[in-house]
Amino acid sequence: MRVLGVDPGSRFMGFGVVEEKRGRLVHVGHGVIKVDESAPLAARLKDLHASLEAALARYRPDAVAVEGLFTFRNARSALVLGHARGVALLAAAQAGLEVFEYAPAKVKKSVGAGGADGKDAVARMVRTFLSLEASQLERADASDALAVALCHLNHGRAASPASGTSGRKKGAASLLADRLTPAYRRPEAR
Amino acid sequence: MRVLGVDPGSRFMGFGVVEEKRGRLVHVGHGVIKVDESAPLAARLKDLHASLEAALARYRPDAVAVEGLFTFRNARSALVLGHARGVALLAAAQAGLEVFEYAPAKVKKSVGAGGADGKDAVARMVRTFLSLEASQLERADASDALAVALCHLNHGRAASPASGTSGRKKGAASLLADRLTPAYRRPEAR
Repeated sequence: MRVLGVDPGSRFMGFGVVEEKRGRLVHVGHGVIKVDESAPLAARLKDLHASLEAALARYRPDAVAVEGLFTFRNARSALVLGHARGVALLAAAQAGLEVFEYAPAKVKKSVGAGGADGKDAVARMVRTFLSLEASQLERADASDALAVALCHLNHGRAASPASGTSGRKKGAASLLADRLTPAYRRPEAR
Repeated sequence: MRVLGVDPGSRFMGFGVVEEKRGRLVHVGHGVIKVDESAPLAARLKDLHASLEAALARYRPDAVAVEGLFTFRNARSALVLGHARGVALLAAAQAGLEVFEYAPAKVKKSVGAGGADGKDAVARMVRTFLSLEASQLERADASDALAVALCHLNHGRAASPASGTSGRKKGAASLLADRLTPAYRRPEAR
């Protein structure tokens, strides 16, 4: 089971690929797609779509996971982000993949970070889970994408495809730790 | 010069095609793409993209015009609409077309409707401009799409491709009337 997680920002789109191999969660790859902000919006979306298609072709995941719809302070930024997110969901559907959405709080919980923890904490936990060095995971966009992939591997068996709602209600960070081999357990859980 | 206007709603996406032939503005076609609301979001976006591709292939416009980014009361509805809008811009860019954005107020002005006028008024003016019967233009989504196409034919020569901003500032409804042949003038302008 290989999952490609996506963190669809309007300037940077992070993706991260995690595979479950005999009960172990293994980092496969990640990247950040940078958008040329000087280009017209439609051209930016075209580049984004092409880059995502390339990542899907390269990593051939079995499913795609994205953070669910959540509330924004600013409707304008929500609209702009919606464009990028729509293109990401489209690319996944066109590749014949099911897309799963998870609420941001659930994604955080899946890697053992709390609701008040910031992106730094998520990045730290993702590195620990996947045995990555800080230098291997420089941008938060990619670690957020890996976190949502981890979240799906934890919840995915019971989840249903994205329907615009944000997935199941109960978080289950402990389940993830249970399914990790000792080498992949987070230090706090030892 | 043939323009395909798009009104990207999250449930219905209207499109309308208008051509300028020797100074006359001629209705070429229009339609409303209905989205299956019971399908998962990603599948809906895939269907939307395929339907738009089909419309672009059928009508072969020279440019695409869309209403510009504007303010929403509700960030959540803005995010959802952004998905559909992003897919529309993507389909246009993938077809090699430039996309032009116009502020809603400018679109209204272009067909001679005021800022306070509702969709009904826009629909009425579009029908008058393009000599259509009410029965030919049942849904407001399609008349809004025709209105944005008309807007582009009025402003397009000086406009630059969409860059996330909402186009030029000055409306010029009178210019459109000037370029219409008598048969296409709105009654008030006679």
